[in-house]
Order: sequence, then C-alpha cells, then structure tokens
Amino acid sequence: MTSTDWLAAHRERLDGALAAIRTRGYYSAFPESPSPRVYGETAAADGKTAFEAHLGTTYPVETPGANGTVSSEQSPYGLELNVQYPRTTESGLDELLAAAQQGLTGWRNAGPDGRVGVALEILDRLHQRVFELANAVQHTSGQAFVMAFQAGGAHALDRALEAVAYAYEEMSRYPAEATWEKPAKGDPIRMTKNFTVVGRGVALVIGCNTFPTWNSWPGLFASLVTGNAVVVKPHPLAVLPLAMTVEVCREVLAEAGLDPNLVTLAAERPGDGLAKPLAERPEVKVIDFTGGSEFGEWLEQHATQAEVFTEKAGVNAVVVDSTDSFKALCNNLGFTLSLYSGQMCTTTQNIFVPAGGIETDEGHKSFDEVGAGIAASIGKLTGDDARAVELLGGIVNPAVISRLELAPEYGDVVLASRAVKHPQYEDAVVRTPLVVALDAKDEEVFGRECFGPVSFLIRTADTAESLDLFRRTVAEGGAMTAGVYSTSADVLDQARDAALDVGVALSENLTGQVFVNQSAAFSDFHGTGANPASNATYTDGAYVASRFRVIQSRRHVV
Amino acid sequence: MTSTDWLAAHRERLDGALAAIRTRGYYSAFPESPSPRVYGETAAADGKTAFEAHLGTTYPVETPGANGTVSSEQSPYGLELNVQYPRTTESGLDELLAAAQQGLTGWRNAGPDGRVGVALEILDRLHQRVFELANAVQHTSGQAFVMAFQAGGAHALDRALEAVAYAYEEMSRYPAEATWEKPAKGDPIRMTKNFTVVGRGVALVIGCNTFPTWNSWPGLFASLVTGNAVVVKPHPLAVLPLAMTVEVCREVLAEAGLDPNLVTLAAERPGDGLAKPLAERPEVKVIDFTGGSEFGEWLEQHATQAEVFTEKAGVNAVVVDSTDSFKALCNNLGFTLSLYSGQMCTTTQNIFVPAGGIETDEGHKSFDEVGAGIAASIGKLTGDDARAVELLGGIVNPAVISRLELAPEYGDVVLASRAVKHPQYEDAVVRTPLVVALDAKDEEVFGRECFGPVSFLIRTADTAESLDLFRRTVAEGGAMTAGVYSTSADVLDQARDAALDVGVALSENLTGQVFVNQSAAFSDFHGTGANPASNATYTDGAYVASRFRVIQSRRHVV
Repeated sequence: MTSTDWLAAHRERLDGALAAIRTRGYYSAFPESPSPRVYGETAAADGKTAFEAHLGTTYPVETPGANGTVSSEQSPYGLELNVQYPRTTESGLDELLAAAQQGLTGWRNAGPDGRVGVALEILDRLHQRVFELANAVQHTSGQAFVMAFQAGGAHALDRALEAVAYAYEEMSRYPAEATWEKPAKGDPIRMTKNFTVVGRGVALVIGCNTFPTWNSWPGLFASLVTGNAVVVKPHPLAVLPLAMTVEVCREVLAEAGLDPNLVTLAAERPGDGLAKPLAERPEVKVIDFTGGSEFGEWLEQHATQAEVFTEKAGVNAVVVDSTDSFKALCNNLGFTLSLYSGQMCTTTQNIFVPAGGIETDEGHKSFDEVGAGIAASIGKLTGDDARAVELLGGIVNPAVISRLELAPEYGDVVLASRAVKHPQYEDAVVRTPLVVALDAKDEEVFGRECFGPVSFLIRTADTAESLDLFRRTVAEGGAMTAGVYSTSADVLDQARDAALDVGVALSENLTGQVFVNQSAAFSDFHGTGANPASNATYTDGAYVASRFRVIQSRRHVV
Repeated sequence: MTSTDWLAAHRERLDGALAAIRTRGYYSAFPESPSPRVYGETAAADGKTAFEAHLGTTYPVETPGANGTVSSEQSPYGLELNVQYPRTTESGLDELLAAAQQGLTGWRNAGPDGRVGVALEILDRLHQRVFELANAVQHTSGQAFVMAFQAGGAHALDRALEAVAYAYEEMSRYPAEATWEKPAKGDPIRMTKNFTVVGRGVALVIGCNTFPTWNSWPGLFASLVTGNAVVVKPHPLAVLPLAMTVEVCREVLAEAGLDPNLVTLAAERPGDGLAKPLAERPEVKVIDFTGGSEFGEWLEQHATQAEVFTEKAGVNAVVVDSTDSFKALCNNLGFTLSLYSGQMCTTTQNIFVPAGGIETDEGHKSFDEVGAGIAASIGKLTGDDARAVELLGGIVNPAVISRLELAPEYGDVVLASRAVKHPQYEDAVVRTPLVVALDAKDEEVFGRECFGPVSFLIRTADTAESLDLFRRTVAEGGAMTAGVYSTSADVLDQARDAALDVGVALSENLTGQVFVNQSAAFSDFHGTGANPASNATYTDGAYVASRFRVIQSRRHVV
C-alpha cells in the first residue's frame, strides 16, 4: 500500500467528514458504543490484554536524542503502570529536532493526498486499537471506562478526522498547477504556475493530563497532514495514550517509505520543564497546547516564532432565569457536574440564579430550592457507589483534591463532596461534586477557575445581574462553554447577545441528552478563540490555515 | 441602497474573483490602462483637478480623539502638498478606540453579505476616483503616473478585491444555521445550531511610504469585511491616498446606516511614534504592517494580543546560470532594476553570476559581459530624461539617497547612478539604478537589504555556489521574490528545490513582459510567510481565517 492507496481506501470516510464540516450537521466515523455488537465479542477483552501487556515494560518507541528512560504515570485507580519511555532532556533537543527535520522534504513531496492518506491510515489503525487506548486513557486520566472509550477513543478519532478534513480542504483551495493568460496586444502573455504546499517546520504538541488524546490529536493531525514534523510532549501523568499514538504514526510512516522521525515522543521526568525550552526552539514553528492559563499565556507571549494554538482555563457559566422543565434542568446540570467529577475544561463552574428564585413548571422555586434540586439530582446519580464510579471516574491528580478540600470555606455548602469506594480498584480516588453557594459580591472566588468537582451557585439580584456577571467573568476569565435556561424570548436574546459579545458558545435550555460540557465533532466548535480560555477552536479554517504556506514557481509557456 | 443591494450590484465582480482564487488564473476587475478609451476623455484631467483641490486644504475626514491637525507630506516631485489631517496622539487613543468599537455590534449584525456588500461598494467608489488616487499616490510615493495608476489604483483595487473574495469564501464555509440530528434509541436527538461570524475587535493597518494603497488595502479590507473596525495609521509621508480611502469607507458605511467610525484615520506627526502605543492596546486584535524589518519584528514579538501580519524587508535574489536569450535576460532584469528606481520590496537586489561567466545564445559571456549587458539595458531604458522619469519615478525619501551615495564604496561600480532632470517638476529627485560588483565573500554587504536603486552583481565560483548563497541569504535575510535563468533542467530543479526549502516564490527564465518584481492579483502570491521577509501572503486562507471567529448557539428542536 502506498499513501495514495490509503487515501483511496479511506476516501468515503474523508468525504463524509468533508461534507459534515460544510453543513456542521451530525456525522461520526467511529462508533461511540463499546458494545460487542459493534466491535465484536472479544474486542474489549483483547484491548484490555493489550493494555496490560504494556505494564511494567519499556514502551517500544524510539526517540532520537533520548537519554535513558522515564516512568512517571500514576493511575487514579491505583493500578501500577510502571511503563518506561525514552526520556528526552534539554540536552537531547538538538538531536531530536535535527532528526525531526530530516524527513521534511520527503513529507513535502508526498503532497496533500499522500499525507492525508497516511493520516487516515493512522486513524484507522488507532481505531483498531481503540479498546487498548481506552484502557490507557482510563488509567492515566481517571475517566471511567465508557467515557475513556468515547471521549478518549471514538470522539477523539472523530475530532482528529475533523482536523484532517479541514486541513485537506484548506490545502485543496490551491491548484497544484495553473495557467495564467493575460490579454495583450497580439498574443496573450501565457505562464504556467506551480503551487506547492509546504509545512512550516517542526510542530510541537503539548498534551494534558485529563484528555491526552482528545485534546492532542486535532493539533497533531492538523500539523502532520499540512507537511510538518510533529514532536509530541505528553503530560508526565498521561504518556501511554500518546506513546501508542506516536508508535502508530511511526509504523505507518515507515510503511509508506517515509521517515518515522516525522513523529516523535518527547517524554520528560516530572519537573524537568521540557516544554519551555522546546517551545522556544527556532525550529518549532507550530505549537498546540492544552493546559493551564499561566503556561498557555507564556507560550502566546514568548513563542513568537511559532503559530501558537492554546486551550487554557476558564470560568464556564450557566445563567438560570426560568424553565418549563425544572426536573430536567436539575438532571441535566447534575449530570454535567458529575461527569468525570467535573474535571472537564467544559464543565460548568458558575451557576447564576436570582436571589428571589425562578419561575418553573412546578411553580416558583426559591434560590435554595434550585440548589436543592440540582443537589438532589447529583445525589441520585452518585448515590450508589458502583454506579457512581462509572460516571465520576477517578480524580486525575492530587492538586484537584487540594482545591476540593479548600472550597467548602468559600461559602455555604449546598452539597458536600464525598469519597466513593471503587468496587474494583481499592486505591482509586473518587469524589462526588461539591456545590457551594456564593453571593454576587464573591467575584474574587467565582471569577477564577477552580478546576475539579467544585461548582458555585451564585445568588444574584436578578437575571440582569446574572447576565452582567456572565459577561464580565467570561470576558475576563474566559470560558469554554456557557448555558442559559429561560422561558423568555427576551432573556434568550440577551443571553445570545452577551455570548456573541464575549465570544463563547451558548447552549440554551438543555434538558435532554445533550450536555453543556459536551461538544460533538464536525458540528460543535470546541472553544472559540474569542475569549481568554482559548485562542483557537476545534476545528475551523483558522485552526489549519497557518500551519502551512503555499510556495509558487512560474515560467512562460514555451 | 442597502448593503445587500450592493452585494447584488457587484455580484458579478465578486463571482469573478471567487472563481479566480480557486484557479489562480488571470483575472482583473479594474482596467489597468489609464487610457481615455477605457476611462473616458475627461477622466485624467478631472482626477488631476480633484487631486489639486486637496492641496493646501484640511482634508474632510474626522477622527475621534484627534488633537489639531498635522501636515507631513513631501512630494518626491517637489510639489507643495500641504494637506492638513486630524492629528492623533497617544493621549487621544482612548477616545479613538472607544469610538472604533462603538459600531462593532451593528457591523456584526450586518452579516457577511452585508459587510461584503459595503466593501464592494467602497471599492467601486474608490475606482471612480482612481485618477485622483493615482495623483495622490504619485505625489506621496514618487511613483511615475502610469505606475501610480496601475500599482496604486487598478492593481491595488484587484488586490483588495482578492482579499475580500478570500474573506467571503472563508466566512461562507460556516452555515448560518445547521440542524443536527443524532440517531438514538427511539427518536433521534435534534438540535438547531446557529453560527455567527464575529470580528476580533479593532484592526490596525500601518501603511508604508512606497505603496500606500497596494500594501494597505488587502489587510484593511480583509479585516473590515470579517467584522472588525479598522484604524488606519498611514506613513507620515503618504497620508493622502489613505485619507481618501478612509473618507470613502466612512461615506459608504454612513449611507448603509452603519457607524462611520468603523474606519478611522490616525495621522501622526513624524517622530511621534504612534504605531507602538497603538499596536500594544488590548483593543487591537489584528495588525497589518508593511515596512522595515526592525519594527515588523518588534510587532511580531510584542503585539502578542493581536494577529500580526507583516511584510518586511528582504534580499531578493536572481541566480544567473545560462540563457537562450541573453538580450531578453538583460532587458528583463534592466527593467526590473529601473522600475520605480528599484524602490519596490520585490526589486532584485542580488544577482548571482559565476566568475567564469555563462553560456548564452550569443555564445559565452564573461562575468563582466553579463554586468555590461544589464548595464546597457538600464542605460537604454533611462538614457532619455523625459522617458526615464516615467519609468524611474522619484526617490521616495532622503534615506534612499543616503544609501545610494554610500553604495559605490562596497565594490566595483558596474553602472553608476545618475541624477535625472524631470522635465515637468524641477525639484523632483530622480536617480537611475546603481549596479555594484561584489565577491561571494562580501556576504556582509549583500546579505542585508539596501533598499533603493542599488543592486549587486555577485561573482560566485559557479552556479552551485550561487544556489548556496541564494539559500543562505534568503533563509537568513528573507526575500519577497527570487528568479533563476538557466537552460539546464537540472539547475532549474535545484533552484525550485532551493526556493521550496527557503520558502520563496520563484520566477524562471523571465525574458518577456513579466518581471520578477511584479505579482499579479488573484494568481501570484505576494510574499510567502515562509521566510523572514514576511509572515503572511497576499492572499491566501491564512491571511483571512484568523481575522474572525465563529460563535455558535444551540438548542433542541421543539
């Protein structure tokens, strides 16, 4: 198989994605259900076995310039992972980056079709290992298995395919060859022009702990298919899913006769701070980052030799004005706060509710009753330990526990967090969400991100103040998501205007099986790039267009 | 007329542009010939009269926050301009930027079609004033009249239209509304989603002295139609063409019921250094800059709150290996060096020629004979003063003269520069090109830009060394253009590879009526963004995509 054979083999999948990004309607290329009816009877067990085979071994991936190995992962479920990876240190960067650049000319010459063929084959092979990946994501991020399968597997593959589709469309805007014929006295002036897509150089992907694949793959694949080499620097606590990714990339590149060092893994020892020196290297022309605001802003301000795409932190908000379905509101918000213990960059932190309460289909509900309703929903969803752990997953790292322990002091506890005992993993760290009531004047608390299972129910004078606080906190602190509940067309209009003004995506009256913290690939944009929480979105034209340049040559037709 | 009526009125022009940017073939919407047969018998005289009416007056354009007026232009032809413009100072920026933002919501609500309609109407009205503009460009940049008409008028309008077309296509990638229908047990889950194009905020355009319209309009129109307000800060020596531009923008905006302060003129007193404080303002989210490398790099490194598009300086190169048309080679290069006295960012500076000479259709030509051939062509083109001034134009400012006066000392003078007497303007400053022979070892001289009518004929060991020096100088110093002359397919291949590697557009064997320093709108990309001379190109997807964001809202279908 050559890379263009792969394009043909996966053409239908690509065409589906290309159609979807035009309509932004529903599309999925990778089934999200881990059911044996979809994936076969042995798929789950085989995947688990494949995952377990990595434990305590040295991962079979080579990194140029690496110096010894490093093992840094800690499963939130307490499972001993002890996987060794090649360790990259600052002194190995010359060798690593030289090796990364070695294959760039061949990669450029493969052309858009060849590169997209390679990427589609990589995605297909990652899909073949989706159960193994799901186990790896579960035991590094702490996501429960089904979520790890979906968000870390199928949905991540969809998001990666979305990025490939945008990049393919972007590269296809320019003809490979053009004839230019300018009318003139006598014969027209005729030229032939060639246009070549050229990557920017080396791209760096900096992974995060909570969504090692979902948040890394869009940038990785967007950079790769546009002709760049990619260095993947995983979070030290979530290496395995990206080591697998890099392994598959290298395997497919090598099969296509391309340089496997076009994709490399740069694993570091915790505390080495490898991302900074990597990001400052002149060879690095594109950077994708998911993580904290401080380092994200540092990258935006200092890695000015590179195109920098960041997803940082925010203060996601929901404005509650009124509802025609109070139970469904409580259930919907309760699920959002509980899923993965609120450790999503899209989880709602701030719920603005008027002090005087709200009108609902069940009559007037006081501020306290709204809090009690949401708390009751969470209680129901997480009351049974065995069921709870499948929704909550594990706490990703000790910093989350520290924040959770401090949070009750910020205000009045509406719902306390409790430790849940995992029936299968006795050392698993599992917590239910904490909900704290605050006043509008406590902006110093709710204006900052408190990442983890902590949400604030904020007492406002009225919906007008809720909307004001929504505007101000999102404009200043950023947000990945926002929601509004209202039966008033006026209030919905005001919320839409506010969302447009501060540049955040708005979910209105979610009372069913769609949640404010979830974004569907091909349809929902994730982040906007229009507020401080992120400077880019998954995925639009701006996400791909500057990852390559078009270089032309021209000559007269003779 | 409303803005969407304007879209309909100019639809054919837009559609032509949209088709052209897909094929990158020949297209022009604005006739480049200033002939009375095209523009009418009185057009030239009327335009000159309209231009002259501005002299010694206060230009009728208002700038919020302005403090008095400023008059700073010096015609290279010695004409007294003495046009007064509102003077913006640092202390007026609060008021200016507040006013610029005032109309953003209305501008957003006009939608892509409305904004593009406004832009197309602006271009049409600028076209109606093209002779007046040409005079303004002539007497600020020093370009001869026909060039000012073409490069400063018709071609600039084409480039602006190209940017509008890319922006329109980019915004049109996203549906305004989508239906999302996810299969589920029982009824599918149905949502309606809205997608709104939202500008980034205030865009800043920093103009240059040599091409006040051609280099400013692409960014201005790209930012404007994508929903931003635009502050135009002209070069103090080339205000009038941009004052006219701003006037027309404001007039059309007001007619459409939109806020005229969406486009403002920020003229400064020379030495005020207004660009820096403007560029650092948090309201400024997009910056387009044409000018020197030092300030361009400062912007790239410091204005990190904004998307920064720069066109800076470079060391444009031509590699001469061999030719089957020696006379045509000399004439083509001679014209390039003479046009506008080499004061184009695209003019060739470095001509690499093997010490042993080259093979040609006229037999072997020594290094000295190549130099003599080019010098003779220049001599012929500029020998007659009356004809010469129509090609050379005037010297844009005294800094060019200073560089020109120093340059003979760098090496052996192949062709001396001479002062030309303008038959019409006795105070005009006109110079013919200087050509200096250097050795390959003089990289310290030819590795830096020497802007103006100075070119270097560089003696290399052979074409292999020429290509090495070409690679190195362009990689380090950047280049807007590059050329190669060779009858060898091998050498052409090597030159193409080198051009792809260092990211510069290549012109091969230009011996006719196309010149390496000229780029045709809709077909040739101007700059690449892939070498230090520029970080962007006119015009591709990357030039427009990050000037706006897409903000969505979603709700269940009820």
